[in-house]
Amino acid sequence: MTEHQERHLQSSDFLTDIVIGMSDGLTVPFALAAGLSAAVSSTGIIITAGIAEIAAGAIAMGLGGYLAGKTELDHYQAELRREYQEVETVPETEKKEVRDIFARLGLSEEIRQKAAEEMAQNKKLWVDFMMKYELGLDKPDPRRARNSALNIGLSYVVGGIVPLSPYFFTGTPLSGLKYSCIVTAICLLVFGYFKASVTGQSPWKGALRVLLIGGLAAAAAFFVARLFTQA
Amino acid sequence: MTEHQERHLQSSDFLTDIVIGMSDGLTVPFALAAGLSAAVSSTGIIITAGIAEIAAGAIAMGLGGYLAGKTELDHYQAELRREYQEVETVPETEKKEVRDIFARLGLSEEIRQKAAEEMAQNKKLWVDFMMKYELGLDKPDPRRARNSALNIGLSYVVGGIVPLSPYFFTGTPLSGLKYSCIVTAICLLVFGYFKASVTGQSPWKGALRVLLIGGLAAAAAFFVARLFTQA
Repeated sequence: MTEHQERHLQSSDFLTDIVIGMSDGLTVPFALAAGLSAAVSSTGIIITAGIAEIAAGAIAMGLGGYLAGKTELDHYQAELRREYQEVETVPETEKKEVRDIFARLGLSEEIRQKAAEEMAQNKKLWVDFMMKYELGLDKPDPRRARNSALNIGLSYVVGGIVPLSPYFFTGTPLSGLKYSCIVTAICLLVFGYFKASVTGQSPWKGALRVLLIGGLAAAAAFFVARLFTQA
Repeated sequence: MTEHQERHLQSSDFLTDIVIGMSDGLTVPFALAAGLSAAVSSTGIIITAGIAEIAAGAIAMGLGGYLAGKTELDHYQAELRREYQEVETVPETEKKEVRDIFARLGLSEEIRQKAAEEMAQNKKLWVDFMMKYELGLDKPDPRRARNSALNIGLSYVVGGIVPLSPYFFTGTPLSGLKYSCIVTAICLLVFGYFKASVTGQSPWKGALRVLLIGGLAAAAAFFVARLFTQA
């Protein structure tokens, strides 16, 4: 069992949040800075725009994640109340739903009947079963939304500072972009590798995927901005 | 049954993608434009930065979503192969896992035994059961990743044009910002309302939530950019 569980091991939620926030934080501010480097002559504007984007992105991701988590919790609780009501008011319909679920599992008529009768003896187990197997809803952790929002938001800020930092030290946008590409590419590879590892994927494939997204987004922003400036 | 199904009705994936892409596309370009309005004197820079951000964000969200979908599919298929291997090589362990799952449902020893024996008669049903109820994995739709990526990316572009459009017509960043706030607030409310409706939430609460996120992100970007420009 131990070996089996280990192979299916889920990553820690905390690490996942950090890696998600940081790799997104690396990508969009990097691409924005790249786009502006094609269009403006002052690094000051790039830094200001970058900082504004980091603030906006961190709030949108963090608060958005928090409210999504709250919504999921509200939804779960509303459905839970409804199921409790249904096992009270229409128990025969709910028993038929239990039998249907067991039928879909390919189990015999005998087991379907017995399982539905046994379920009906314990309302809490019955409702939990309907929540999970009829509606596909798992009980969300109420503290998860807040923690996750905070971790993702802060990681976005930390990630966003990386592609922006070279512009503090260089005189022209294009030399800033050069160093930004180097440090960001390294960080994207590291975080892609790490992200793939914690989610149980092939690490090098994951590293290249994250680098590809960041590189394409930055290249697109650069050429679109240049096109627009020359038009 | 019909009434019951209706109340638990899931939204169409297509609509969800459109609404997700569009409400995110409204939020971040809006906040970026607001931040830059506090810091620069030319609307041209805001337009260029906005377009660069829209290109970057659409690619990051779209391509990111596509690769996440691909990764999920790979992960599902790898676990599926592993489960088929396990029911061949360690059938007794897997039967015990079936019994454990039925035990957690609160069912009697008799049903646990019978269900495990019946499962073992049909490898496909058995593996499907383990995938869903041991590992909590649903079979992902292989075309879903590509469609979803395209829908979200394009909606992000459409959404992003909304907060940016007033800057094309106004002389100064601050008057652009005024009209941008008005049109974006209206669109955020409409999309928040719609998003909440398709996901089965309270529509007005959803509308206000989305407006709150957009407003806070824009306000934060505005004040951070102003602070940084004055420093």
